[in-house]
Amino acid sequence: MSQPKVLVQLDADEQASVFDAVVAVDADVDHLLQYRGVCPPQVRDLVHGAMFTRGPVELRHTAIFVGGANVAAGEALLEEVRRCFFGPFRVSVMLDANGANTTAAAAVLAAARHTDLTQATCLVLAGTGPVGQRVARLLARRGARVRVASRSIQRAAEVCQTLANRIADARLEPIVVASSAEAAAALAGAHVVISAGAAGVTLLTADGRRSTDSLQVAVDLNAVPPLGIEGIEVTDRATTRDGQTCYGAIGVGGTKMKIHKAAIRRLFEANDQVLDAEEIFALGEQLERG
Amino acid sequence: MSQPKVLVQLDADEQASVFDAVVAVDADVDHLLQYRGVCPPQVRDLVHGAMFTRGPVELRHTAIFVGGANVAAGEALLEEVRRCFFGPFRVSVMLDANGANTTAAAAVLAAARHTDLTQATCLVLAGTGPVGQRVARLLARRGARVRVASRSIQRAAEVCQTLANRIADARLEPIVVASSAEAAAALAGAHVVISAGAAGVTLLTADGRRSTDSLQVAVDLNAVPPLGIEGIEVTDRATTRDGQTCYGAIGVGGTKMKIHKAAIRRLFEANDQVLDAEEIFALGEQLERG
Amino acid sequence: MSQPKVLVQLDADEQASVFDAVVAVDADVDHLLQYRGVCPPQVRDLVHGAMFTRGPVELRHTAIFVGGANVAAGEALLEEVRRCFFGPFRVSVMLDANGANTTAAAAVLAAARHTDLTQATCLVLAGTGPVGQRVARLLARRGARVRVASRSIQRAAEVCQTLANRIADARLEPIVVASSAEAAAALAGAHVVISAGAAGVTLLTADGRRSTDSLQVAVDLNAVPPLGIEGIEVTDRATTRDGQTCYGAIGVGGTKMKIHKAAIRRLFEANDQVLDAEEIFALGEQLERG
Repeated sequence: MSQPKVLVQLDADEQASVFDAVVAVDADVDHLLQYRGVCPPQVRDLVHGAMFTRGPVELRHTAIFVGGANVAAGEALLEEVRRCFFGPFRVSVMLDANGANTTAAAAVLAAARHTDLTQATCLVLAGTGPVGQRVARLLARRGARVRVASRSIQRAAEVCQTLANRIADARLEPIVVASSAEAAAALAGAHVVISAGAAGVTLLTADGRRSTDSLQVAVDLNAVPPLGIEGIEVTDRATTRDGQTCYGAIGVGGTKMKIHKAAIRRLFEANDQVLDAEEIFALGEQLERG
Repeated sequence: MSQPKVLVQLDADEQASVFDAVVAVDADVDHLLQYRGVCPPQVRDLVHGAMFTRGPVELRHTAIFVGGANVAAGEALLEEVRRCFFGPFRVSVMLDANGANTTAAAAVLAAARHTDLTQATCLVLAGTGPVGQRVARLLARRGARVRVASRSIQRAAEVCQTLANRIADARLEPIVVASSAEAAAALAGAHVVISAGAAGVTLLTADGRRSTDSLQVAVDLNAVPPLGIEGIEVTDRATTRDGQTCYGAIGVGGTKMKIHKAAIRRLFEANDQVLDAEEIFALGEQLERG
Repeated sequence: MSQPKVLVQLDADEQASVFDAVVAVDADVDHLLQYRGVCPPQVRDLVHGAMFTRGPVELRHTAIFVGGANVAAGEALLEEVRRCFFGPFRVSVMLDANGANTTAAAAVLAAARHTDLTQATCLVLAGTGPVGQRVARLLARRGARVRVASRSIQRAAEVCQTLANRIADARLEPIVVASSAEAAAALAGAHVVISAGAAGVTLLTADGRRSTDSLQVAVDLNAVPPLGIEGIEVTDRATTRDGQTCYGAIGVGGTKMKIHKAAIRRLFEANDQVLDAEEIFALGEQLERG
């Protein structure tokens, strides 16, 4: 009989996420160990405790989930976790702080259902935020032409440079969007727009959206009204509006949740998985193919 | 196959209650998520995490328990929890900080076994404390005439007013009890006395108790000697003393524990339960009827 | 049907040990309640919560594990835990802060496989540290002649005195070891050496070890190179080196882990177990006999 599946939830917040905990349980984790207020210097002992308790055959039944509301804090924890591994001494680990990886994957998958990304030009609004960067990264990996929009051209350029360093042949363009008018202008000739901005801030008006004939898919990841793209409803799921296929945050939420659970299950298939943006997106693609 | 039962334990104390945790487990909770040091501003994210992870059909398998030693802190957390709900987006929740609701319910049920509360006059010693207020509230709801005793007539009057605002036709009387002599005087003509005072403080002497011919039932909720009502033993369970039916804290503890477990189980029958004093008492009445 | 097995993990560290948690789960604990940052004044409420939730028959399905990296802090928590018990109101409890008890037991059992301890002279390097003291204690209980080595003769003498007060007929000798040369000298005529020093500090050179003809068994409990006894490998398990039987930290780790799991399981066989160094060693001896 195999050992129970143990997931170690590392969370930098004052209280560990209930959301992440319930998803873990629903993905058949037997014992969830919740750690809150985790800072990088504490990671080593926690990870060693996970690495050194079970033999090589059973080690795949222990895994680590890095969550929390702050994506940068989560990335720092993941880096510390990976630093603890050596040779075959390792456990699988997944990063989904603030749901950034699963959300970005679900958004890009939604767009990919309706257009050939390798032929598409995509605008990512709030493209320098934690979710936006991941959306841009996944679009670029899939071969799309990506416009990374930000209020700051410098930050947009930095994100493009970082992505270009990681992705060969990436086609990226930084673009300033500090107003609805600039958003509409940035959309010119684009086939896809994905908005990953802060809650309650409209980045693109309905007029702006309608002004672009080329636009095929519009995805808004903001769950709190007013949404980032005016005219989209939070529950839109491949809803046609003005001839454009629209998704709202809840509309991509079902896919996001499926990916999240599948990723947790995947952790327990081997002890050497590291599930970050690309791996989680690849998992989402498998689920799409059914 | 239905999803596992997840209980989120919200506790304002430095360490979450082991007592509440073990009772939860013994009431068939599959996964207990313990949160300690919880303050009201943290509640929203935690509750949203519980509300937004499972679909409508399975939402009843997630619930919240608000505990901790401080009843006022627990009430504040419950208020925050309820504020997060809207429409069908909600999970069931139970308040039993410091065991106040289950203890008050068990005490009133014990009295109700031996007298018709609608015809009874009841004295609640320490009636303005967290348990005492609930005892007074439940007695008033059952139609008893209730004397709310406190060292401060002002606090007693405030509690009576608060209860009168909530309960139509409540028959309440504030009464000062700052000494054993005043307690004996306050008992005149009463059929029931329930003492809900601090540990180790005698509120009513044995002479005082025996001086009242009308007295049928005496319940003491203090588990640490000396008890609040002299002459009662902590293990008394419908024990006859001087012609009066007596209960001590352990004597009502069995009923309290049964109610606590039944309430936890009840949480998972629907996603819209709010179990506070009245609902928990009603559940106790059902258990009494068998 | 019996109630689920609940283990309360009390840990004084900022984060509770993942290692202890996974071992608990692998020893068939159904519900692990993790408590971190536990200080002695918090123990009473936690232990009462464990003692007063289940009836006498089922009380053995609740137990307490005291862990954490700091052995002195763990000992203080254990003392507080024991102070809460009275009469039959108690639950079983185990101390294994920093793995000190299971490690010491495994080290002494390893030595006992290859020599008759009642006839042996044993040198314990770093014999005043938390593991070293336990090694000396277990060796003395088994009837060995024990040399307790420390950089401070005063601390060595204190440990010998403490052990002599607890163990009738103990044969103990404090000895100063502040250099490799002193370690080699201290080894003269000894049959067993067990090194329990800090990570990465060599206490005995290979030359020193080889210089003693009487030496039969050498055990090093340091897992991080350089080891405490030069020439031993961390994976040595009854490995012969220069005619001496050698064990490294990983080499005794298998036995340590078996003892740890067996001790957790033992907790749930009755509600009155207190598993400290001697009891855990006795359990290890049973496992050796098979």
